[in-house]
Amino acid sequence: MPDELLPSREYIEDFRRAGHATVDWIAEYLANIREYPVLPRVSPGDLMDALPASAPDSGEAYDAILRDFEAVVLPAVTHWNHPGFLAYFGCTGSTPAVLGEMLSAALNTNGLHWKTSPAIAELERVTLDWFRQWMGLPDDYFGIIYDTASVSSMHAVAAAREMADPEARTNGCLPNLVLYTSEQSHSSIEKAAITLGIGQRNVRKISVDDQFRMRPELLRQAIIQDISSGRKPFCVVATVGTTSTTSIDPVSEIADIANAYNMWLHIDAAYAGSAAVCPEYQWILKGAERAHSIVVNPHKWLFTPVDLSAFYTRYPDILRRAFSLVPEYLRPQEDPRAINYMDYGVPLGRRFRSLKFWFVLRYFGRTGMQKLLRSHIELAKEFAGWVDEHPDFERVAPVPFSVVCFRYKGSDEDNRAIIERVNESGRVFLSHTALNGQFVLRIAIGNLGTTAKDVREAWALIQQAAADRVQVSERS
Amino acid sequence: MPDELLPSREYIEDFRRAGHATVDWIAEYLANIREYPVLPRVSPGDLMDALPASAPDSGEAYDAILRDFEAVVLPAVTHWNHPGFLAYFGCTGSTPAVLGEMLSAALNTNGLHWKTSPAIAELERVTLDWFRQWMGLPDDYFGIIYDTASVSSMHAVAAAREMADPEARTNGCLPNLVLYTSEQSHSSIEKAAITLGIGQRNVRKISVDDQFRMRPELLRQAIIQDISSGRKPFCVVATVGTTSTTSIDPVSEIADIANAYNMWLHIDAAYAGSAAVCPEYQWILKGAERAHSIVVNPHKWLFTPVDLSAFYTRYPDILRRAFSLVPEYLRPQEDPRAINYMDYGVPLGRRFRSLKFWFVLRYFGRTGMQKLLRSHIELAKEFAGWVDEHPDFERVAPVPFSVVCFRYKGSDEDNRAIIERVNESGRVFLSHTALNGQFVLRIAIGNLGTTAKDVREAWALIQQAAADRVQVSERS
Repeated sequence: MPDELLPSREYIEDFRRAGHATVDWIAEYLANIREYPVLPRVSPGDLMDALPASAPDSGEAYDAILRDFEAVVLPAVTHWNHPGFLAYFGCTGSTPAVLGEMLSAALNTNGLHWKTSPAIAELERVTLDWFRQWMGLPDDYFGIIYDTASVSSMHAVAAAREMADPEARTNGCLPNLVLYTSEQSHSSIEKAAITLGIGQRNVRKISVDDQFRMRPELLRQAIIQDISSGRKPFCVVATVGTTSTTSIDPVSEIADIANAYNMWLHIDAAYAGSAAVCPEYQWILKGAERAHSIVVNPHKWLFTPVDLSAFYTRYPDILRRAFSLVPEYLRPQEDPRAINYMDYGVPLGRRFRSLKFWFVLRYFGRTGMQKLLRSHIELAKEFAGWVDEHPDFERVAPVPFSVVCFRYKGSDEDNRAIIERVNESGRVFLSHTALNGQFVLRIAIGNLGTTAKDVREAWALIQQAAADRVQVSERS
Repeated sequence: MPDELLPSREYIEDFRRAGHATVDWIAEYLANIREYPVLPRVSPGDLMDALPASAPDSGEAYDAILRDFEAVVLPAVTHWNHPGFLAYFGCTGSTPAVLGEMLSAALNTNGLHWKTSPAIAELERVTLDWFRQWMGLPDDYFGIIYDTASVSSMHAVAAAREMADPEARTNGCLPNLVLYTSEQSHSSIEKAAITLGIGQRNVRKISVDDQFRMRPELLRQAIIQDISSGRKPFCVVATVGTTSTTSIDPVSEIADIANAYNMWLHIDAAYAGSAAVCPEYQWILKGAERAHSIVVNPHKWLFTPVDLSAFYTRYPDILRRAFSLVPEYLRPQEDPRAINYMDYGVPLGRRFRSLKFWFVLRYFGRTGMQKLLRSHIELAKEFAGWVDEHPDFERVAPVPFSVVCFRYKGSDEDNRAIIERVNESGRVFLSHTALNGQFVLRIAIGNLGTTAKDVREAWALIQQAAADRVQVSERS
């Protein structure tokens, strides 16, 4: 066995060459992104069939790997970084974040506790505090990064369980805890209740008003009824920017109720919270000063690639009480400024996620970020105007942010056919939802590169698909 | 608002320049890694104090960000990529993985379900199947990537809960479920029980033998006793490569018991499972063919940066039943090859993690990987020999893999002083554990760059620190 197997000079220079080639590849990819179809033209199994059944016995050269990346992997990629990606919530792997991820992978430092990487522990606090200030959230909010909003919200509900029953971690979950959220809330809230042992039957989905916002009076009624049946209401999840329509629950009124019944209030602002970076949108988080936790995903609308979910709580001690479990081999030093993030959740290993976020926050700055967010909201309002003016289309929800829900005034089948036709073009990718029992089209603007041109093109494709559909119907 | 705000040519070329500079920086960092102290010489708060209290209003240039990265962030990094990193479990951000992460961040594709990125869904299946074959695991094991072993094991225990009580997701967690694991198992198992609503008091920590392996006869006794008290044993977690000593639970005997009582058997092989890439180590997974799930972390010993935990289960349908929020009767007639990984766990968003793993598997190949793993095991055995031969030191556990547990034949205080002195050198970083009530030193070899030179240096530093300690004691 040679003393210096790796890293040898050859290993380093091999990386340097391939690294430069990869940077150039990324630059060309981003410069020519509109030439790719947003949705890949592959069938299930194509990629699996194109790769060998087993890994190679001998190591391969970068040239071969990168060639296969382009020939086999890339054709199966859905291009979330395409400016025509208008589905779900738009998001972006911006270039400063790519640099951050390169460095993070090269350092491979791991933040189990403070000492295992002070940089991870402290840059996470710095970036989340910067972001908190941008959104105008109170300074008693303590930030922590999880991978996804689903995992963030699960931790919020776990902290709520701990607040309601400090014996939960020892004795298991009480059978009578009840969680409240709106019927428009994200499925991750129900999934949190499943995971934590609360059970789906203990989740109350409160009805919404005609603008898809939770109705506080129904929330209060449900709580009173559950208490009178001997159950224990312990948590309310309000949403700022629901997944279908981006509707905004009345957080202040919900906070009144949550506080009155001593319940944990979690705000799911995974998508829309970022809008509060613009002062004229900070009203959306009004009531957060009386909430217990909030989640906002920079990997949605803040030009940060997946995964980076920013979770904030005003009660970090309760979260830590719920999860801390320190064995001797991990016992760290005690210093109040040396935060050990492993005490605040399920994962022990911790990537250096804040590094890419720090790059993004500094590269764009507050005003650059505001300009981008406002441009997306403007584009959505413009699109909404086109829908409103068109005799054959109707808008089916308000447009508080950068998402428009609308439909062709025809059958669900018509709308299904339209979206399929539009998505087949490869130029744009829209997704759909269901509202009031109807199939609804949805355009979501959030990619760094999306411009008026892309939105106009989407609208033209939609109108064309609708016109073609009429022709087909008339002919048949 | 200009039509072409971004990506403009300027944005792309700005990235290209900074990207090339960053590749060169990484190459130099890795080439000169031994010049950095493994543990950073910072105090809690240093990094936070060195950065501005708020994010910038205007965007900044890459030069300024990269300069601060070097001046402020880097000095607070614990260098897990240093060949002298001999703490916890060694791990590596190898260069093929850095390329994979660059591309993954640039594509920013997100695998919610198959269509949102066929490449994510299918490359995950390909790479985990390749890895499964390397370890000699049966082909009925279905692979899925989670971020960390803690999260993988939590999903295993959730599937176990589902198997024991298919009503759990609806009604919440039964109060009488009992989980069994050894007193040497990782804290994440107990944390899973806390999270899932099972409760710490329903975790039985079975005693170990003098080689730190779970004692199957005590497991059986505990199960029988719990059944007779009306409790429901539902899950056993065996460990192959425990965190303190890398001991190997007798999986086959444990599988006999788990199967007899219809319990889910999960194998935590987060660290040591990778050794099975070498055929002479595949015996460690004997019994896995009768287990229900297993976790192995490529981000530990397989030269893949955090995070990438490979979870395998022979019962993916049970896992899906536990977590899918699309009721089975509504599930559309789908292509069985179009896997939707979101149905198998808590997170909905999914990074393109398999890409870096695919780069790693191909770059090293099976024989390259075997050579590295064997070299680490050889180095550990050599180190163990030095300890055994030294009159003032003693080894306190067998060395089946690449970790040696040992101590100076003195007080706990002596050993504490020795490790502190050694770690202050900046040349190596060791961690400690507790065994049989004693403070124990631990050397863990697993970094790509660790050579005989590093291990010899560690041993010299340890001996020197012990000798100095004797002098100090004699003088005082």
